[in-house]
Amino acid sequence: MTTDPITSVIADFIVEMQFDRIPEEVVNEAHRTLLNWMGVAIGGCRHPSVDIVLETMASTEGPASILGRVEKTDSLTAALVNGISSHVFDFDDTHLETAIHPAGPVLAAILPIVESRNVQGKELINALIIGIDVTCRLGLAVTPNHYDIGWHISGTAGIFGAAAAASRLLESSAKKTRWALGLAATQSSGIREMFGSMCKSFHIGNAAKNGLMSAMLAKNGFTSSEQGIEAKRGWANVTSSKQNFRAVTNGLGKDFFITKNSYKPYACGVVVHPGIDGCIQLRNQYSLLPSDIKRVDLKVHPLVLELTGKITPKTGLEGKFSIYHACAVALRYGKGGEDEFSDRAVNDPVIKALRDRVKAEVDGSIPADGMVINITKADGSVIAKDIKSALGSLQNPLGDDLLNEKTSDLCRPIIGKNQTKKLIESCRNMAQLKKASVLLKATTPS
Amino acid sequence: MTTDPITSVIADFIVEMQFDRIPEEVVNEAHRTLLNWMGVAIGGCRHPSVDIVLETMASTEGPASILGRVEKTDSLTAALVNGISSHVFDFDDTHLETAIHPAGPVLAAILPIVESRNVQGKELINALIIGIDVTCRLGLAVTPNHYDIGWHISGTAGIFGAAAAASRLLESSAKKTRWALGLAATQSSGIREMFGSMCKSFHIGNAAKNGLMSAMLAKNGFTSSEQGIEAKRGWANVTSSKQNFRAVTNGLGKDFFITKNSYKPYACGVVVHPGIDGCIQLRNQYSLLPSDIKRVDLKVHPLVLELTGKITPKTGLEGKFSIYHACAVALRYGKGGEDEFSDRAVNDPVIKALRDRVKAEVDGSIPADGMVINITKADGSVIAKDIKSALGSLQNPLGDDLLNEKTSDLCRPIIGKNQTKKLIESCRNMAQLKKASVLLKATTPS
Repeated sequence: MTTDPITSVIADFIVEMQFDRIPEEVVNEAHRTLLNWMGVAIGGCRHPSVDIVLETMASTEGPASILGRVEKTDSLTAALVNGISSHVFDFDDTHLETAIHPAGPVLAAILPIVESRNVQGKELINALIIGIDVTCRLGLAVTPNHYDIGWHISGTAGIFGAAAAASRLLESSAKKTRWALGLAATQSSGIREMFGSMCKSFHIGNAAKNGLMSAMLAKNGFTSSEQGIEAKRGWANVTSSKQNFRAVTNGLGKDFFITKNSYKPYACGVVVHPGIDGCIQLRNQYSLLPSDIKRVDLKVHPLVLELTGKITPKTGLEGKFSIYHACAVALRYGKGGEDEFSDRAVNDPVIKALRDRVKAEVDGSIPADGMVINITKADGSVIAKDIKSALGSLQNPLGDDLLNEKTSDLCRPIIGKNQTKKLIESCRNMAQLKKASVLLKATTPS
Repeated sequence: MTTDPITSVIADFIVEMQFDRIPEEVVNEAHRTLLNWMGVAIGGCRHPSVDIVLETMASTEGPASILGRVEKTDSLTAALVNGISSHVFDFDDTHLETAIHPAGPVLAAILPIVESRNVQGKELINALIIGIDVTCRLGLAVTPNHYDIGWHISGTAGIFGAAAAASRLLESSAKKTRWALGLAATQSSGIREMFGSMCKSFHIGNAAKNGLMSAMLAKNGFTSSEQGIEAKRGWANVTSSKQNFRAVTNGLGKDFFITKNSYKPYACGVVVHPGIDGCIQLRNQYSLLPSDIKRVDLKVHPLVLELTGKITPKTGLEGKFSIYHACAVALRYGKGGEDEFSDRAVNDPVIKALRDRVKAEVDGSIPADGMVINITKADGSVIAKDIKSALGSLQNPLGDDLLNEKTSDLCRPIIGKNQTKKLIESCRNMAQLKKASVLLKATTPS
């Protein structure tokens, strides 16, 4: 427990933070977060879970865009749907220290506001930075106990970021922002037992929807506690056995958590990323063809075989849990996107033959984001790569070109080449745009 | 933890329970629960919190009735609003052992289904009995730890009852009902820190809305865990430090928790009920007028002065926390409804003079639902009443006539005399009605 008025401190930050005080490199990272998220949200928009939610909410028409689709709905339904589609591929951004995917609840919540109000680009970016800061700081305040107990922290902390960013764009007072945070505290939900079902992505969408609703209700005068986070029976004490409220206030308004955001280069669990990374590097360095490869030997961290040891995957989804498949597609295509984890890729004869030649052995000295790859070529020679920090980690972040390519690969099949180009430009220049809603215009199939 | 498939057992009960197997006295209690709840929901429908939610959700028009009002909205918004209005007076039903107000989430969730589908009266009653059973059984499984930690159990357990009853009326399969319970588990929320703000009633409405959405999504194929309640990181383990899963299964389908439901005769905290009860009895027995009363002496349980010791209330809401005001209105009007706890009543000169003559003294030998009342009359004689179990307790339930009167007092000013009469008839005869939706027609202002 604390005697600090945490909810008030956060509300003041939300109301007072000015875009002009944010360093350029932070704004740049916000542009990258926005771009990465738009790509995965549009890429996931045809998933069955999205179809079901739209079908179920058929009665709610409105002005808010569904990313990558032609339907329009009311704001809350749009927040729900866009949040879901951004997480279905598990390809969105990650704040590694808390395991939070921070952009989803925040961006899905504010896009309907951006679309219905005259929001400037820099205001969107400011709200995004504020929302991610609130989410990560509150997540850190209850890490690791909250997640260990069983809460899916991307949703349970994400709702605060959504309420924060939405309150800012609705220009709520500090008092009404405290109410919005209270409404978020009392709706925070989502448990880890749901992993493996459609509910996992639902948590992201639900945090967006309910965070937005919290801000809207509070703005209209709906009251709540003004100590919803720190009170004896407030969110932090009810949902975690330990609290670190200093994580909320330390460097608030000066250090921005969006700079610690990371973007996956590959559409699968993070433990196989070093393998894909190393195989792509060897392929490109030696111009390898599948027929050049006699055998691949991996030395891996123990978690790799525990989580992704499937030897003969049958579906694209199973392929994401196979280090053998992941290395085979990396060697053949030089990529690890959604296409490389499709049913087609998993059942491709060349890939099947190649993956049978990949062997993995656990080595306790290998770090979690590293891997050693030895390839024996057809001519008997051996080439090797020792990956220490996989691409996409904080030490080795995804470069701008690769991020553009990832977004492009996800969006082109859905919205077409021209819209994809406009989308990337809008995201990269958001802070300079007079009308942030230009972004939404680029998300509809042409 | 348990190895019993609790979620499956509950889902089977929801799918298989037949109205014909329910004893007549249980059906009768369901009629009483329905009547009491409709009264408080209509009575509360003009509260500012209801206005704010309707204003905020203005974009969502639809076919579902808002009780006591002319607006119509989509089903989910109607569930939210009707759930809120049913709890704003804190005058709804109570399952005393768990402190759950069970009817709200269940009835607010199913009324939109009743209105849009051809539901028979006996199906509504069956769903209500099922929903309340699921809510109270799950509540009992985590009592008292869950509430002590800080969860507002009426919402957190209520969402399961809402999902259960809605799934039944949507004729979902057992598998889809398990998904609906999983969706409820992962949306269960609401913390006690919110007591004293509009969020307290919001919890009831939110449980209704999200329970209904759970059933709708699952019906359309949205997947979740099928062990959402009992799994290691399922609802019961994540939100409570102890679990008693036997409470869920003991007598399931034979003993019905709706028979343990109770209805408040007075629109205030339960600790002052014995005082109101005794004063009304003495007033009627001796035809007392305020001028006949020289002095009133109460012997009360310690909680009475701790919770309701306000000597000079200034508003209707403060009047609810004044044992002195409560006894004064009981002696003058022979009632303790919403009217008797209005700003007007609190500032009435006759009431003020009478309440100054009421004195209370703590006596450790008085039970929580009892009180001793001694009235010294103007002629010096003393009359007394020793209340052991206040009206409205399980030992001394509110009779049918008083329940009709309570409902009537709440509804007449809102929907008029004729509609109120039709409403009471519809509730009292629900199991015999071919079309349950007749009920909704009686809830709109004439």
